Amino acid sequence: MLYITRKFHFSASHRVHNPNWSDEKNIEIYGKCANPNGHGHNYILEVTVAGENNPEIGFVMDLKELNDIVENELMSKVDHRNFNIDVDFMNGVNPTTENIVVKFWERLESKVNTAARKLHSLKLFETEKNIVEYTGKTK
Amino acid sequence: MLYITRKFHFSASHRVHNPNWSDEKNIEIYGKCANPNGHGHNYILEVTVAGENNPEIGFVMDLKELNDIVENELMSKVDHRNFNIDVDFMNGVNPTTENIVVKFWERLESKVNTAARKLHSLKLFETEKNIVEYTGKTK
Amino acid sequence: MLYITRKFHFSASHRVHNPNWSDEKNIEIYGKCANPNGHGHNYILEVTVAGENNPEIGFVMDLKELNDIVENELMSKVDHRNFNIDVDFMNGVNPTTENIVVKFWERLESKVNTAARKLHSLKLFETEKNIVEYTGKTK
Amino acid sequence: MLYITRKFHFSASHRVHNPNWSDEKNIEIYGKCANPNGHGHNYILEVTVAGENNPEIGFVMDLKELNDIVENELMSKVDHRNFNIDVDFMNGVNPTTENIVVKFWERLESKVNTAARKLHSLKLFETEKNIVEYTGKTK
Amino acid sequence: MLYITRKFHFSASHRVHNPNWSDEKNIEIYGKCANPNGHGHNYILEVTVAGENNPEIGFVMDLKELNDIVENELMSKVDHRNFNIDVDFMNGVNPTTENIVVKFWERLESKVNTAARKLHSLKLFETEKNIVEYTGKTK
Amino acid sequence: MLYITRKFHFSASHRVHNPNWSDEKNIEIYGKCANPNGHGHNYILEVTVAGENNPEIGFVMDLKELNDIVENELMSKVDHRNFNIDVDFMNGVNPTTENIVVKFWERLESKVNTAARKLHSLKLFETEKNIVEYTGKTK
Repeated sequence: MLYITRKFHFSASHRVHNPNWSDEKNIEIYGKCANPNGHGHNYILEVTVAGENNPEIGFVMDLKELNDIVENELMSKVDHRNFNIDVDFMNGVNPTTENIVVKFWERLESKVNTAARKLHSLKLFETEKNIVEYTGKTK
Repeated sequence: MLYITRKFHFSASHRVHNPNWSDEKNIEIYGKCANPNGHGHNYILEVTVAGENNPEIGFVMDLKELNDIVENELMSKVDHRNFNIDVDFMNGVNPTTENIVVKFWERLESKVNTAARKLHSLKLFETEKNIVEYTGKTK
Repeated sequence: MLYITRKFHFSASHRVHNPNWSDEKNIEIYGKCANPNGHGHNYILEVTVAGENNPEIGFVMDLKELNDIVENELMSKVDHRNFNIDVDFMNGVNPTTENIVVKFWERLESKVNTAARKLHSLKLFETEKNIVEYTGKTK
Repeated sequence: MLYITRKFHFSASHRVHNPNWSDEKNIEIYGKCANPNGHGHNYILEVTVAGENNPEIGFVMDLKELNDIVENELMSKVDHRNFNIDVDFMNGVNPTTENIVVKFWERLESKVNTAARKLHSLKLFETEKNIVEYTGKTK
Repeated sequence: MLYITRKFHFSASHRVHNPNWSDEKNIEIYGKCANPNGHGHNYILEVTVAGENNPEIGFVMDLKELNDIVENELMSKVDHRNFNIDVDFMNGVNPTTENIVVKFWERLESKVNTAARKLHSLKLFETEKNIVEYTGKTK
Repeated sequence: MLYITRKFHFSASHRVHNPNWSDEKNIEIYGKCANPNGHGHNYILEVTVAGENNPEIGFVMDLKELNDIVENELMSKVDHRNFNIDVDFMNGVNPTTENIVVKFWERLESKVNTAARKLHSLKLFETEKNIVEYTGKTK
């Protein structure tokens, strides 16, 4: 089994906030991440696909195809945007790193998976120190 | 002459925008950086101080003192904040990287400079690819 | 399943040395790492916790809580210390990277694990080229 | 179980090319990677070995031994070389990252594996954004 | 004075070789860099422009303009190419890092310089350990 | 003018300590860096040499020659050593980063300088956040 990984960079802002809670509780739970006017990050996303090597081509997956999928499904919607306001698929979702990466997975899985390859993991770096990885529901 | 450098990390959001221009002109000049709801970055700031070595201590400047100055003057005001709304010393200033670093210099210079040492440069990384360095008015 | 990772930095010195062996054998096995007066590293520790996403909060684990545990159990005891002399829980243990990471696991596991989350791996970088990962006894 | 990883750097050139195809098809599939005169990379190889800790020594594997194996089997043959012309074990193999890492595995596995340790994964960075990991045939 | 820096990545191959010398002398002087079939690198180029801040825009130079210049003059000609064969402006030039960076400067200087800004330095990383910086003829 | 830079890595331990002061004053001034049993770092040293390009060779300086000088004068004496005990040229010198880099300069300058090239700067990273650069007495 081979695992190919491609890194993507995007810059976005967010406010971590649960609308069912008081402002005090939001600050108690989320600290400075709950700043009402938001803050932002240079996120790094690592997309890993598992599969067999295509013997004729020597690729698990053409990286141009993977780039196109991630560009269309994610980058064009989140880069230089505000997660709380601008991103339709995050509507009503509190933009914690955990919630973002699960939503990203939902958008990519069906576009990436074929008989020969599967989306294996998404690793989202909010900063170089804070990282969340998701491997799907069934693993 | 010795030059000491200390790196600081902060996360902030901004919208690059000239209020004297139409929305169309802002988008023409600033592209996706003009997104009305903002976006954000993990900024890195490198503060460099030039000076003589103190022979008794073996330091140009105590890094704890430098940390305290940068924390009080800058980090406590910009980390996890929105440059357009939350930062008093950026009031009325379009938060391009160039404008931010000049304002940072104004806040640090008098606190850092003594007879034995001078603020030498501020280098601000908006992303790992986009960097602005400022060395003050007279250099 | 989600995996959250937090990076920690600390600086420590050590001497790799088996007291049951002659100096000659220590140098034969450990080379320059056996220098009697020690040497040191800027270690990086990546702590990964696996768990379910808390739907109300959107976190697997509050990073402030994880920071407090790692600070209390590890960082306050090893940062700017000598592993051979200053660290009580390394008493009688030869401070190879493998031995350090296993001792770190023993200190963290019971503090991190709950019904909803488990310590998943510790990855210790002695240098950027030499890395040891531990996933516990049962994996 | 412990996993030790050692990073290696080498610089090589290659031309991605299937000799059974026309030049047009090679360019269609491989794009600029099919440039007839080749191009090159600073590759990074991460070699991970899984095993038990040797209680007397405190190592899964002596890194000097691992260095010698990787130097003899790989680095001495690929560093500052052309994968299409200079590397005997790549003879007749299209030097995609996937194909290279599988060939590397074949050369290392029998030299690394003992009763107490196994080659666990090879991770080859063609660039910092493009990465292929291989874990062997049976995983 | 402000200094803006933008990083560019490209992958290329080269053979360091003086055609006026014997093969033996080339190997004596250039070592493994003289391999007849070439080798390659992931080069990083840092382009720094010095200038005054435009008060209306808040930029020393629009990065889109700088990107276009570097793309047209350099990246489109060297990325995924062989410096000895494919790059017209390197014709007859031995592709050492020093020689490359001087040629890059010649192509960029007149395109970048205006009354308000000047090309300040080019820094070319052949690897992360080997770096050459050029600041032009007159500095 | 061209500037060539080569990076070197070494691991060492030190105790920052002024023997003319009480233990209390050492701790007041140096904090945890004064730990009596020392601590350590993975230091990075960047050596920059300024000079003219040799037109026949295309180098400012042969990197093998620079490597040999730095290896003989510095690396062989400090790597995997204790600055306070093992390094003869640091005898009686408090091993702050400032003091180390000035001593390194004294050892390298006469070996590097010729009519065609000069040692230009030494940049010593104690950690990735703490950096000291020295450019010699006369600049």
